[in-house]
Amino acid sequence: MQLAKNVSTFIGFDNEYDESKIVVFGSPFDGTTSFRPGTRFAPNVMRNESYGLETYSPYLDKDLEDINIFDAGDLEFPFGNTEKVLTDIKEFTADIVKDNKIPVMIGGEHLVTLPAVEAVYNKYKELYILHFDAHTDLRDDYMGEKLSHASVIKRIWEFVGDNRIYQFGIRSGEKQEFEWAKQHTRLTKFCCDGLKEAVKEIGDKPVYVTIDLDILDPSIFSGTGTPEPGGIFFNDMMEAIKTIKDLNIVGTDVVELSPHYDNSGVSNAVACKVLRELVLATAK
Amino acid sequence: MQLAKNVSTFIGFDNEYDESKIVVFGSPFDGTTSFRPGTRFAPNVMRNESYGLETYSPYLDKDLEDINIFDAGDLEFPFGNTEKVLTDIKEFTADIVKDNKIPVMIGGEHLVTLPAVEAVYNKYKELYILHFDAHTDLRDDYMGEKLSHASVIKRIWEFVGDNRIYQFGIRSGEKQEFEWAKQHTRLTKFCCDGLKEAVKEIGDKPVYVTIDLDILDPSIFSGTGTPEPGGIFFNDMMEAIKTIKDLNIVGTDVVELSPHYDNSGVSNAVACKVLRELVLATAK
Amino acid sequence: MQLAKNVSTFIGFDNEYDESKIVVFGSPFDGTTSFRPGTRFAPNVMRNESYGLETYSPYLDKDLEDINIFDAGDLEFPFGNTEKVLTDIKEFTADIVKDNKIPVMIGGEHLVTLPAVEAVYNKYKELYILHFDAHTDLRDDYMGEKLSHASVIKRIWEFVGDNRIYQFGIRSGEKQEFEWAKQHTRLTKFCCDGLKEAVKEIGDKPVYVTIDLDILDPSIFSGTGTPEPGGIFFNDMMEAIKTIKDLNIVGTDVVELSPHYDNSGVSNAVACKVLRELVLATAK
Amino acid sequence: MQLAKNVSTFIGFDNEYDESKIVVFGSPFDGTTSFRPGTRFAPNVMRNESYGLETYSPYLDKDLEDINIFDAGDLEFPFGNTEKVLTDIKEFTADIVKDNKIPVMIGGEHLVTLPAVEAVYNKYKELYILHFDAHTDLRDDYMGEKLSHASVIKRIWEFVGDNRIYQFGIRSGEKQEFEWAKQHTRLTKFCCDGLKEAVKEIGDKPVYVTIDLDILDPSIFSGTGTPEPGGIFFNDMMEAIKTIKDLNIVGTDVVELSPHYDNSGVSNAVACKVLRELVLATAK
Amino acid sequence: MQLAKNVSTFIGFDNEYDESKIVVFGSPFDGTTSFRPGTRFAPNVMRNESYGLETYSPYLDKDLEDINIFDAGDLEFPFGNTEKVLTDIKEFTADIVKDNKIPVMIGGEHLVTLPAVEAVYNKYKELYILHFDAHTDLRDDYMGEKLSHASVIKRIWEFVGDNRIYQFGIRSGEKQEFEWAKQHTRLTKFCCDGLKEAVKEIGDKPVYVTIDLDILDPSIFSGTGTPEPGGIFFNDMMEAIKTIKDLNIVGTDVVELSPHYDNSGVSNAVACKVLRELVLATAK
Amino acid sequence: MQLAKNVSTFIGFDNEYDESKIVVFGSPFDGTTSFRPGTRFAPNVMRNESYGLETYSPYLDKDLEDINIFDAGDLEFPFGNTEKVLTDIKEFTADIVKDNKIPVMIGGEHLVTLPAVEAVYNKYKELYILHFDAHTDLRDDYMGEKLSHASVIKRIWEFVGDNRIYQFGIRSGEKQEFEWAKQHTRLTKFCCDGLKEAVKEIGDKPVYVTIDLDILDPSIFSGTGTPEPGGIFFNDMMEAIKTIKDLNIVGTDVVELSPHYDNSGVSNAVACKVLRELVLATAK
Repeated sequence: MQLAKNVSTFIGFDNEYDESKIVVFGSPFDGTTSFRPGTRFAPNVMRNESYGLETYSPYLDKDLEDINIFDAGDLEFPFGNTEKVLTDIKEFTADIVKDNKIPVMIGGEHLVTLPAVEAVYNKYKELYILHFDAHTDLRDDYMGEKLSHASVIKRIWEFVGDNRIYQFGIRSGEKQEFEWAKQHTRLTKFCCDGLKEAVKEIGDKPVYVTIDLDILDPSIFSGTGTPEPGGIFFNDMMEAIKTIKDLNIVGTDVVELSPHYDNSGVSNAVACKVLRELVLATAK
Repeated sequence: MQLAKNVSTFIGFDNEYDESKIVVFGSPFDGTTSFRPGTRFAPNVMRNESYGLETYSPYLDKDLEDINIFDAGDLEFPFGNTEKVLTDIKEFTADIVKDNKIPVMIGGEHLVTLPAVEAVYNKYKELYILHFDAHTDLRDDYMGEKLSHASVIKRIWEFVGDNRIYQFGIRSGEKQEFEWAKQHTRLTKFCCDGLKEAVKEIGDKPVYVTIDLDILDPSIFSGTGTPEPGGIFFNDMMEAIKTIKDLNIVGTDVVELSPHYDNSGVSNAVACKVLRELVLATAK
Repeated sequence: MQLAKNVSTFIGFDNEYDESKIVVFGSPFDGTTSFRPGTRFAPNVMRNESYGLETYSPYLDKDLEDINIFDAGDLEFPFGNTEKVLTDIKEFTADIVKDNKIPVMIGGEHLVTLPAVEAVYNKYKELYILHFDAHTDLRDDYMGEKLSHASVIKRIWEFVGDNRIYQFGIRSGEKQEFEWAKQHTRLTKFCCDGLKEAVKEIGDKPVYVTIDLDILDPSIFSGTGTPEPGGIFFNDMMEAIKTIKDLNIVGTDVVELSPHYDNSGVSNAVACKVLRELVLATAK
Repeated sequence: MQLAKNVSTFIGFDNEYDESKIVVFGSPFDGTTSFRPGTRFAPNVMRNESYGLETYSPYLDKDLEDINIFDAGDLEFPFGNTEKVLTDIKEFTADIVKDNKIPVMIGGEHLVTLPAVEAVYNKYKELYILHFDAHTDLRDDYMGEKLSHASVIKRIWEFVGDNRIYQFGIRSGEKQEFEWAKQHTRLTKFCCDGLKEAVKEIGDKPVYVTIDLDILDPSIFSGTGTPEPGGIFFNDMMEAIKTIKDLNIVGTDVVELSPHYDNSGVSNAVACKVLRELVLATAK
Repeated sequence: MQLAKNVSTFIGFDNEYDESKIVVFGSPFDGTTSFRPGTRFAPNVMRNESYGLETYSPYLDKDLEDINIFDAGDLEFPFGNTEKVLTDIKEFTADIVKDNKIPVMIGGEHLVTLPAVEAVYNKYKELYILHFDAHTDLRDDYMGEKLSHASVIKRIWEFVGDNRIYQFGIRSGEKQEFEWAKQHTRLTKFCCDGLKEAVKEIGDKPVYVTIDLDILDPSIFSGTGTPEPGGIFFNDMMEAIKTIKDLNIVGTDVVELSPHYDNSGVSNAVACKVLRELVLATAK
Repeated sequence: MQLAKNVSTFIGFDNEYDESKIVVFGSPFDGTTSFRPGTRFAPNVMRNESYGLETYSPYLDKDLEDINIFDAGDLEFPFGNTEKVLTDIKEFTADIVKDNKIPVMIGGEHLVTLPAVEAVYNKYKELYILHFDAHTDLRDDYMGEKLSHASVIKRIWEFVGDNRIYQFGIRSGEKQEFEWAKQHTRLTKFCCDGLKEAVKEIGDKPVYVTIDLDILDPSIFSGTGTPEPGGIFFNDMMEAIKTIKDLNIVGTDVVELSPHYDNSGVSNAVACKVLRELVLATAK
């Protein structure tokens, strides 16, 4: 008998690295999470639970079987050393980008987006950011720490600059964050209104799309560290992804699933479906 | 003292067989479930949890107290023998139909609908099917098995034929299933649009209504084996039942509650309320 | 070193009694709960979980930091003695009212509203009641008991009288309760339609607002004893609170969170946010 | 077709009242529970879960099939009225005793033992009490209430008197309760040492056996309101029941299962097995 | 960059097929489970959770790093077709045995042991069976089905014959099963007494070891379909494995973990450690 | 009315700082946890759950009411900055020690013990360490990080030196850790044998007692990040605390409760009782 070792990938992400335009990897880091940790478990859980999903999307009428995607598994991180983790992500993302492939990262907490965007930005200086989230993430620091999930977009703004960041679904933050956003980002409260205009403005410029899944209402996505009632519904998310499907997406991520807080498995199913749709929208 | 044995029925289903037009029974079978089993527990859990419900429906302005319903309890099945299970259900349903009563079955996985419809069809050859579900259930087979929850509607189509089956809420399946449906069933994606037209077309013909509860969004119904985000909301379901309340319903079922996946008990409450409304809509 | 004992309050409710117009306290009583008990845990859980919340509300553009609120902790009750519990609540509320402060009570089951309203009514004889709930709570008695969560509004009606009580979101009850309401209260089924008219009618008269959180759909609020699918969504609740924010609210409560039934913590987050908004709307 | 209503009994308890020496009934009351409520759900859950059990006991080499047992279902109680509940239990138990049958009660919290023992004592004035528990239950009152789960054995002592009560497994209480017990009951700390001597002393006198399941270590019985680590193991319980199997048991109960606190179902299985063994030991 | 697909194996089972004497595979089947299904999830969960384990055993003073083990992943089964599943397992096991390797199977329910033993027996006609379990598994059939988890040892007896099967830990079954065992197997009730004698009797004959994890007390192993209080403790299991470590083990399995029933993850950790020790004891 | 802010302390820890010899505080840090995080929630949960406990210990026949204990609440930490956290703990502990009080710390993960011991050691250079744990915690580093829960005892050894550390209950680690321990610490595998000898050897020298609660078998303590079956039972822990009650304990901690992994609340009860006994044993 001849047998190969047991392989575990997200459903339909079963191509080799060389033949794939899209490279998926997990960043299981939750070291700056302030309320309830656990996003470290997300990438692995999503791989396992993705087999409850079909590869075909009736939303986009596209099938994962028809595109080439490589699943690199998870990065391995030291625990308790935030800077080392960010460096590892940045270097890995840079390698993917250098090979002219599109990185698709599964978080982890939202801070992992910072090094991924840095790596992508180093190649695409005109980069735009589409930021879907419940939270502003615009704090200057969190209890003295500059590198925090609560300040990740502020850190990104420091190098991409004004008016490059569109924020949608925002419904929680400090008053001064909302004030600051008026000058520096394009923040839409509660919903995704104005996304079509954003798409038009961005045109064919390179875009990084970061989806903090807690933009979704916790009725459909309770498996997250800081549930914020009042979010968008699943169909709004589907609509948003349809809306951005012709953009020039050069990097993307899905973050903040914390599977242990939702025993029903629904949050896992949601995260898997959002990832499927996002990858289908990214593939051209 | 004179005491009778402890009786356990769904709330308001407390009449004797002879005096009842409607006969409820459970088919606790989940043998072909491919993802997460557990629907076998549904009928019993629903009986217990129904006591959190009122007998009066403010939706239909009708009361279970005003109609006669008999609860026969659950069929007992051998484990691991799919064909024997289907035969048992078919024969039991046939007996009910022979007595000119209306069978109301509580699943169990969706495959239990096949023998129930067969038994009803044997009496009503003009039978129409109203199918509420997240999934097409139109596979020809599932991993080689013809008798599967994923192919139950295909099996039913084989004897009721083209254009007798209306499908609503469908949002998951293989591409070829959606293609096939265009020729053979009347499939509505995502929602229940077109239900009023269906009701008009069916007129006073006999109808079997099968409700796979996973048509509901998992935000309100997480207790199911394969949660599919993007479903209809509870009030849409209520609206749908109101819409069909004047049809000539000769058989019906509610399937795919898997209680252990929702610790909160909400899914049980949903299933109970859907059953109450469905029975009230069926009773004339 | 000089250290003070560990203090535990709801986030932003950190003022002294004397300097506060608003006084929050918990009534952890669930002694007449008929289906699933556990609301006794709500006030303490809400204090702990409130730290996942921001003090700033983007809904009302107001901040808890800008108003003075005192958190008195929980009343201590004997177990199994309903009348003694009600007396304790009534006296404590009366003391707050006497000091010209506004009582904000955290339940506990809905029966705790009765003594709080009595105490407030003794000062404000023109009192109106805004009642948000899934259930009519208009039974005359429940299994012979006059003092029951299911009859609390009926008991209140006995002293405030006809047309002083507005009920919203009601979707469960006995047929005769709905009938009775037509003559004596202003009951809106399923939703909050008509709230603006109610606000206009009430004008600057004193109002007691009681929010039974099970008015919310269990998709977003599963942590309650008797989940009733078909409720209002979280944003409807936010809208309702915005609508009443100019009323003369002289007392209010939030009841029926039963935290153990929702392991995800979402219901706790919902209850905390509703309380934050309600307090911000009450403060002038 | 001729069908009877769905009957639900504990496994093997399927005889008629008249032919049975043993009568089982549930007292789903948890109104004075001070820490975590929920024992009200125990009797019904135990009936459902008993079907994971065999009727044959390899411990006692006896089979439920060989004895006649009647399951009367649950008493129905008003909520919030402790005295009425106790009266109902006392009268129901008295009726059973009058018919020369042996009452076997499923709690509910421990206070339900009081009226059951009263009814039995009225017939058997020489009654002894075997009390298995983690807690002394010897408080004079609990927050002013005389009728409390924490004072049930004190109340019983008031009529059976000194040296009629044997307590085993006790590991929690106030210092003065332990002191008091030295004069009035025969209290064994932590374990069941001395049970054989007790059996010898009691001889053929009538005995009421009350098992508060929290005598068991919470490793095997976590489904209870106040878990007390350091308890006896399951095999100790089996040994204890074997030891008392030749006593003249004229009444017995199993109390304090609170099923919702143990999602695994193990506590339910434990309670069912203890009940099976206790009934087999009671039957002669 | 050059990257390989994400591989997922049990910790320390990371060798290639050709270099390994031991071949591990999963049989995720639970089709005849009569009480609570879910063992289908065990092999995959165990792979994921094994990373909480060390590779070194302080019990046996051996390390997984020092032996070669191949993890083949899981077999894929049709759902609802018991006979096909058994054939697949039998053929796969036969292939391993033909290559002179030792099969180590992870269940799934206990019925999967039947085809594995058949395949091993076809090579080793002198095969002995060591059976660790809470249940006799000696029924002739279960509700008419010969192929059932409850009759698996009876089926195996039909070809290995009398006195080849040693059963330990048995504490649940029908009276006649215990009676039958007296003539045909060597059954030890409740514990593992007599294991040393068994080891001596078997000597260097080939042995198949099947561990139904429900032999363990549910205090330490609640994640199983039919929890049976009164089992052996974890250290007893370790002791048993030490005792058999010099036997000529030619095949083995670990079955009946049902991960969803134990949210704490303890049962997964137990299953992983038992598997580690069993593999270390099997490797020579 | 005059009211003070709501105070929250562990039961019986209700004295002022100045009058107390014992000072309790929480260190809610889990930043280097490698498997499953969540110990950050322990101190707060323990305060809340302690009210299920009595203040009197039948094990030690002592009562919390009879000694003075101050509960300082929790330290507040930045997230993602391990070194800052350790500095904060060290300084806070040093302040307590300077006031001639005994620090009692509630973790958090085990790394928090390092700075607490450093602060105590700075006063008591002859310090001995009693270490109760499932894990050796003797790694030199964990994935490159020196400051890790897995290397905390190694770090402590670096300043207290050889033969000052007694380890009990150890059952998991790398082979080389067990080897290293033979030269440098006094490690007892699996159990607490030899504790009496240790007590004799230590005599009246100052001792720091650190209890990693995962020394307990996960049957009774499942609420921890890395459950290790095969641990000591609760009564062994009680026995151990009794054994050390005459030692000169100058500092102590209880770490590694991770409450969310045990929904039943048993682990919380265990942690509270261990803390109660440990404090009673420490108080002279």
